[in-house]
Amino acid sequence: MINFQTSPDQYKHWKLSVDDAVARLSMDVQEDHTLADGYKLKLNSYDLGVDIELADAIQRIRFEHPEVRAVVVTSLKPRIFCAGANIYMLGTSSHAFKVNFCKFTNETRCAIEDDSHHSGRRYLAALNGTASGGGYELAIACDEIYLVDDGNSAVSLPEVPLLGVLPGTGGLTRLVDKRKVRRDRADVFSTLAEGLKGKRAKEWGLIDDTFATSKFEDAVDARVAQVCEGADSPSHLWERGQGRGLDAVRPSPFIPLPEGGEKSGIKLNPLEVETTSDSRNYKNVSLKLHRDKRYVDLTVHGPEANLPTSLDEIQKLGDSYWPLRAYRELDDALLYLRVNEPEIGLVCVRAEGNLDEVLAVDKTLAANRDSWLIREIILQMARTLRRLDLTAKSFFAIVEPGSCFAGNLLELLLASDRSYMLNNPDETVQIALSELNPGAFPMSNGLTRLESRFLAEPKKAYEAFAHDGAFDTEAAEEFGLVTFAPDDLDWDDEIRVAIEERTSLSPDALTGMEASLRFAGPETMDTKIYGRLTAWQNWIFQRPNAVGPNGALTNYGKPTQAQFDFKRT
Amino acid sequence: MINFQTSPDQYKHWKLSVDDAVARLSMDVQEDHTLADGYKLKLNSYDLGVDIELADAIQRIRFEHPEVRAVVVTSLKPRIFCAGANIYMLGTSSHAFKVNFCKFTNETRCAIEDDSHHSGRRYLAALNGTASGGGYELAIACDEIYLVDDGNSAVSLPEVPLLGVLPGTGGLTRLVDKRKVRRDRADVFSTLAEGLKGKRAKEWGLIDDTFATSKFEDAVDARVAQVCEGADSPSHLWERGQGRGLDAVRPSPFIPLPEGGEKSGIKLNPLEVETTSDSRNYKNVSLKLHRDKRYVDLTVHGPEANLPTSLDEIQKLGDSYWPLRAYRELDDALLYLRVNEPEIGLVCVRAEGNLDEVLAVDKTLAANRDSWLIREIILQMARTLRRLDLTAKSFFAIVEPGSCFAGNLLELLLASDRSYMLNNPDETVQIALSELNPGAFPMSNGLTRLESRFLAEPKKAYEAFAHDGAFDTEAAEEFGLVTFAPDDLDWDDEIRVAIEERTSLSPDALTGMEASLRFAGPETMDTKIYGRLTAWQNWIFQRPNAVGPNGALTNYGKPTQAQFDFKRT
Repeated sequence: MINFQTSPDQYKHWKLSVDDAVARLSMDVQEDHTLADGYKLKLNSYDLGVDIELADAIQRIRFEHPEVRAVVVTSLKPRIFCAGANIYMLGTSSHAFKVNFCKFTNETRCAIEDDSHHSGRRYLAALNGTASGGGYELAIACDEIYLVDDGNSAVSLPEVPLLGVLPGTGGLTRLVDKRKVRRDRADVFSTLAEGLKGKRAKEWGLIDDTFATSKFEDAVDARVAQVCEGADSPSHLWERGQGRGLDAVRPSPFIPLPEGGEKSGIKLNPLEVETTSDSRNYKNVSLKLHRDKRYVDLTVHGPEANLPTSLDEIQKLGDSYWPLRAYRELDDALLYLRVNEPEIGLVCVRAEGNLDEVLAVDKTLAANRDSWLIREIILQMARTLRRLDLTAKSFFAIVEPGSCFAGNLLELLLASDRSYMLNNPDETVQIALSELNPGAFPMSNGLTRLESRFLAEPKKAYEAFAHDGAFDTEAAEEFGLVTFAPDDLDWDDEIRVAIEERTSLSPDALTGMEASLRFAGPETMDTKIYGRLTAWQNWIFQRPNAVGPNGALTNYGKPTQAQFDFKRT
Repeated sequence: MINFQTSPDQYKHWKLSVDDAVARLSMDVQEDHTLADGYKLKLNSYDLGVDIELADAIQRIRFEHPEVRAVVVTSLKPRIFCAGANIYMLGTSSHAFKVNFCKFTNETRCAIEDDSHHSGRRYLAALNGTASGGGYELAIACDEIYLVDDGNSAVSLPEVPLLGVLPGTGGLTRLVDKRKVRRDRADVFSTLAEGLKGKRAKEWGLIDDTFATSKFEDAVDARVAQVCEGADSPSHLWERGQGRGLDAVRPSPFIPLPEGGEKSGIKLNPLEVETTSDSRNYKNVSLKLHRDKRYVDLTVHGPEANLPTSLDEIQKLGDSYWPLRAYRELDDALLYLRVNEPEIGLVCVRAEGNLDEVLAVDKTLAANRDSWLIREIILQMARTLRRLDLTAKSFFAIVEPGSCFAGNLLELLLASDRSYMLNNPDETVQIALSELNPGAFPMSNGLTRLESRFLAEPKKAYEAFAHDGAFDTEAAEEFGLVTFAPDDLDWDDEIRVAIEERTSLSPDALTGMEASLRFAGPETMDTKIYGRLTAWQNWIFQRPNAVGPNGALTNYGKPTQAQFDFKRT
């Protein structure tokens, strides 16, 4: 089983150090500490285990070190920044694992941009050596890129010429859409195995600047100092954070220091989880696996009554405050299902608890949205909901008596592929909107889930907000908030048949269908990465020219040469 | 060899009739007239041969029958409109052929929307019977959809539940992006093999209206009459023609009748082409195939001197007028290369002729852009250039003495993945812009090729337009219009090595890379269809769950059942 939880004292591959407003994230991959057998992580190449630590570090900087304004991403190895995803790991992994690996690393890079855009922290890639493939893709997820000019170090995307696959962790998309490199130059760069060094790399817009070895550290430090003083990023050529707009919480140009100007981050403690052979129970989230029927019940338990409403009290609660804990647990549960339960095709989502308590939490969050902690909590909830949108499993929301699909938890229903709400006049079954639904949790396409839902009739979203109080089943149906509203007599059969039908369909066709239907409307850099680029990479990851016995990925590092079928498709 | 040329007197599967302002395109597929062996085209199902006729008919309506305002797309078979792409044809086709087939059918449907958006003709799908799969996808490419209410006829997208593949001819994208069907309803509809009938189909926005059998013809006729009188389309829910904006030629709400109010279309005669084993020569376009080296030289010959400048003269020249003929030939050459020369991975594009004569043609086109004929010619050129953008081969533009990459032909260079321009002070080598480059030939992403090129510095496009006269090699390089400018000594070697390198790379990785790099910037319904949806479909078209021995596509219509590997990827 792959475990997504870690903490700095457990890191094998990264060093996280924080000195006042500057964090340093230094890559120093231990080549024998791999997640699987059969490969060594040479030259700061990475596998999923390395990226799980990176994701954790970024998350911790946001919650535990809110005073940080600049994050320097660099390497402790001489002459190499990062060689990208380990080729032998890719070559020996199943197709499904490769796809899941790329999705997670993409989410980690988007989390860097989310922090930069919404929390104003600047990420500086200090490339003290060559950054190739995924190494350069990590660099272009940062705001600024500086490359040492030592006559040898280069940036490169050698995937196409060397491996017959794509720079699929956002590389191609960020090249032309974020850094806006001219497409013919991008074409040349992406087919040049050795990449480009300092001067030309700068001229083509692949890096922001280059410094001689002797001056490199000082130059980066000077730039970091400027950034901490609020200097603009030189990345003026691209609109930053496109598609991750968060209407309810406006990004600040600088991070407001925690109240009182003191360091007052909160600690992210390990999540507690009890497991049996067919269940996984966190404090607020539980999974019940029906592996023989290929579905899982995922239940989120709503908040208890009388949660604190003041910032001081919330700060004291720290990571046990319901919204933070519940969504961290949900995030972990989604990652667990993706990687460890591949045959589970359907997630039946329930929210159990008191509608009013969820609404009370949302009210507190909205009222305190200008504080750094609440902003980070809201942003973390938004990232988790996007993780759900991007999970290659079907989601059905099930609304029964005792459920609490309100406000932030209503997003679970809106994110689902369809929803079933019991229509029984004798029992209270309700859903509700809160002040967070209009903008706090944007999807990757930049729209809220209600906007995505009502593309044809945008005013329906406003009508729903204008509605007074919670929606009973009839109102929910009338306002178009749920898909089906079976009555008591049909309920059990209808849910059972729906589950059976869904899990009988081709899992691949469902993945492609859901990836197309979930993201109507505008496209952003993120949806391009997860939709277009990922789909092409998935295609190539199956082609004999990459993964067949004579494919380039299979033959990398072997004395044999790749043999291509040259038919263009 | 597959031939893309046809004409109404040769049609096997469609009847095109024109009565004043109304054209009827009636599908009546002859089940034995297939393009390959091994299947029968039952129930108005189609193969590439059927779609080649449809594409031809749409093109002919635009040029030969400009007086047409409404096109009724219907079927001559009782109780069935169209059953979509023939499953047995798909099941027995190679992966590459399936991909090419879907691309062409997508282009045909986009051509319908291009006509509707730019030339104001309304397409009405009169579904006198069930429209399933590709049949419904053809209907949603039309402006309005009417379905007979006979208690039996339905619209459906059964690909996911029955075949384990996607409705990949734009179906999923148009469902949520064009008709903006609510995503949970789209999910239900796309997993419901039997589809939906009249009333519910209308309620969910899948069709515009439904009429009882006895009233169907009259109701459609009445609607056609309204449309001919200029009634608005009920498709008010979606922005029409998104991403196919044509700045230089504004679409009119109605088609301006040809001069004098008379029917004065021009005839599209068959293209003449001379072929040898390694060449294909049209009047203005020639292909020289180097199959052993996997590349082709494609040369477009510029216009002769003193082409007419008045509309009357051009109308008399008809389809022999250079822009129309040259681009029809180019279109045919591109289709030939795609389908008949799969191992050709690289197209070296040259334009031979006189720069000034190309500019003179563009001047004439721009001056007369408000006439129906010139507008149609410009739109046809734009479609051909988009066909090039979407061709899964690499393109290198080669600029040598005697070349004429100016105005419309400069688009060939800008559409190429890279360009090489000889730098020899002793010879005249020039390229030039015309008044058509700023907007007449938009890409699928809605931008011009210059806008796409200069995403990072939009003012560079304006600077190029402000430049006086043609660009010699140094100026072209300075303005960022070409990729490389080798001098005379290096020229031959550099081109040779570039060709060798390109054709040595993995063809699949190049296809995915080019599809990602060519379309930076905004996404539109078209780029979603060609990028996201197509890539997912290509992925699924390779998965064992679809095409393996136990896959759903392989087993369709057989007594055996599909067996899925249920791992979600």
